[in-house]
Amino acid sequence: MAERNQRITFARSPRGLPVPEDFGADETSIPSPADGQFLSRTIYLSLDPYYRNVMKNSQIYADRLHPGDVMVGETVAQIVESKHPQFAAGEYVAVRNGWQQYGLSSGQGVRKLDPASAPLGAALGVLGMPGLTGYAGTVYLGRPLPGQTFVVSACTGPVGTTAGQVARHMGARVVGIAGSAAKCEYAVKELGFAACVNYKDGDLTAALKQACPDGIDVYFDNVGGDTLTAVTRNLALGARIVLCGMIEAYSMDTPPPGPWLGPIVGARATMSGLVVYDHMNRMPEMVKLISGWIRDGQFRYREDVSEGLAKAPEAFCALMRGGNFGKALVRVGAE
Amino acid sequence: MAERNQRITFARSPRGLPVPEDFGADETSIPSPADGQFLSRTIYLSLDPYYRNVMKNSQIYADRLHPGDVMVGETVAQIVESKHPQFAAGEYVAVRNGWQQYGLSSGQGVRKLDPASAPLGAALGVLGMPGLTGYAGTVYLGRPLPGQTFVVSACTGPVGTTAGQVARHMGARVVGIAGSAAKCEYAVKELGFAACVNYKDGDLTAALKQACPDGIDVYFDNVGGDTLTAVTRNLALGARIVLCGMIEAYSMDTPPPGPWLGPIVGARATMSGLVVYDHMNRMPEMVKLISGWIRDGQFRYREDVSEGLAKAPEAFCALMRGGNFGKALVRVGAE
Repeated sequence: MAERNQRITFARSPRGLPVPEDFGADETSIPSPADGQFLSRTIYLSLDPYYRNVMKNSQIYADRLHPGDVMVGETVAQIVESKHPQFAAGEYVAVRNGWQQYGLSSGQGVRKLDPASAPLGAALGVLGMPGLTGYAGTVYLGRPLPGQTFVVSACTGPVGTTAGQVARHMGARVVGIAGSAAKCEYAVKELGFAACVNYKDGDLTAALKQACPDGIDVYFDNVGGDTLTAVTRNLALGARIVLCGMIEAYSMDTPPPGPWLGPIVGARATMSGLVVYDHMNRMPEMVKLISGWIRDGQFRYREDVSEGLAKAPEAFCALMRGGNFGKALVRVGAE
Repeated sequence: MAERNQRITFARSPRGLPVPEDFGADETSIPSPADGQFLSRTIYLSLDPYYRNVMKNSQIYADRLHPGDVMVGETVAQIVESKHPQFAAGEYVAVRNGWQQYGLSSGQGVRKLDPASAPLGAALGVLGMPGLTGYAGTVYLGRPLPGQTFVVSACTGPVGTTAGQVARHMGARVVGIAGSAAKCEYAVKELGFAACVNYKDGDLTAALKQACPDGIDVYFDNVGGDTLTAVTRNLALGARIVLCGMIEAYSMDTPPPGPWLGPIVGARATMSGLVVYDHMNRMPEMVKLISGWIRDGQFRYREDVSEGLAKAPEAFCALMRGGNFGKALVRVGAE
């Protein structure tokens, strides 16, 4: 192979929102698999908000980055050479290659993908970790009952798309929160939500009161901050809040305070923290259920694909500003 | 009856911590019961932090005070005249007479007391609403398992005393938080807690880490604020936080922010709001259980009694500064 391996590297911890200069780029030779390893070429790179936390060396995550390290990340790839007995050249896999064209793997945590059963990119979105997050958080923590009001923020992203549509399939009345009129229109027309509130349109507390006249029974929180505060002012008695993401805080050096907790007591509400890794055993049931819904046209999702690895830093920075519309992917190589 | 009815009235909403000038005093004639009512003379007046919230006309509480109104509050009283078929002169009752020497009641929400089974004042503390709060919050929300670490703040007050000792009887290792060395000594020596941390002794986060080396499995929160933040930095995986009181916030005009919620997610923790009125049906089981423990010497409590109704404003202000030691009562009349 005369080709080289293009990589995007970690340059420095961002100050506030990330900028492209927080990343570097280099190239290496394409590595060869040792016994028990396989080499795969990256097709799609997943962009996820939690990378921002990894870049701050948060202790929540196992990854630790040093300047010059290749950026970590989930990918869909095709195996090009294998010295692993359970993987063969030509197979498609979900594997953590990171932000590079080629990666080695021991096979640990790798899922094989069937390109005939679902589009490959979905394995990084609604049929991957974000989908599992939305699914497990809704089914096992949020537990909406039929007719209850279920609110989800960042509702056109892969986690929110999944949480909201799963709640809809459970009989809940789903209200989304998103950051543009186009996203809100998509949530109602395509995802089947009862309503969607644009948080950039002024008084979110009042808008939620109008969209949720009986109060909010379940809130799936992907963003924290002021949005969470507005929700706490509209809770129904016995409400459940699933704390999943705090995208605002990922770009802050000092963690921000949380909402005033008085309304939590008044509503006898429960807030629970969700970490998707605790629910890995639910991955097969989630993939089976949601891929079935996708084939039947009962579950929709949207991808926002950037072309070429070099675009990854810019696309990631846009994601952290809420500039994406749908699951943020980078096409690194041809399918 | 030539006697008059001395009363303490609401004068104005306090600014910050209450001061005696926020109260007034007057006297009225002693009222006569109509058909279906009884008149009782107050023996003990209970002082509880939530009165501060009532004085701010918080919408959480049903009571609404106007200047000149008698202050609301729980009391133990003896019936002096009855035109109610189910109550007789001479009987002792827990009744909401408020801050006055005599009160009328329709009998609604009134509990009869047997002075032979427990000291009368306990009906306002560990065998009354504060006890029910500590009991129900621990047994039904906190749910400590044997060997788990259970932390309770304001641990020598009636709610904390009950929560901590109930958790001890459930097999938990109980660690108290209090505001003086004397209170901490009492918690360990008398209440049987494994340890007690004085939050005025500097770095509470570090002190809790030392007292709870395996992390905090259950936190019964009576105070909110910085204490809650310090606890969130020491959570065990799967921790449960019972939000019960936010005494700091009661004296603020603008509700303060809550703690940064990242550690709640990291610990997969759950925070639940407790409102004691939801658990009124547990009152008989609580009284039976805890009065039995009191008789067997397996449950202790302490009262901080001020003498005479005129002392009530001053005693209440001291309570809100944490100056009491044990359940704050005012002796309004002889037993």
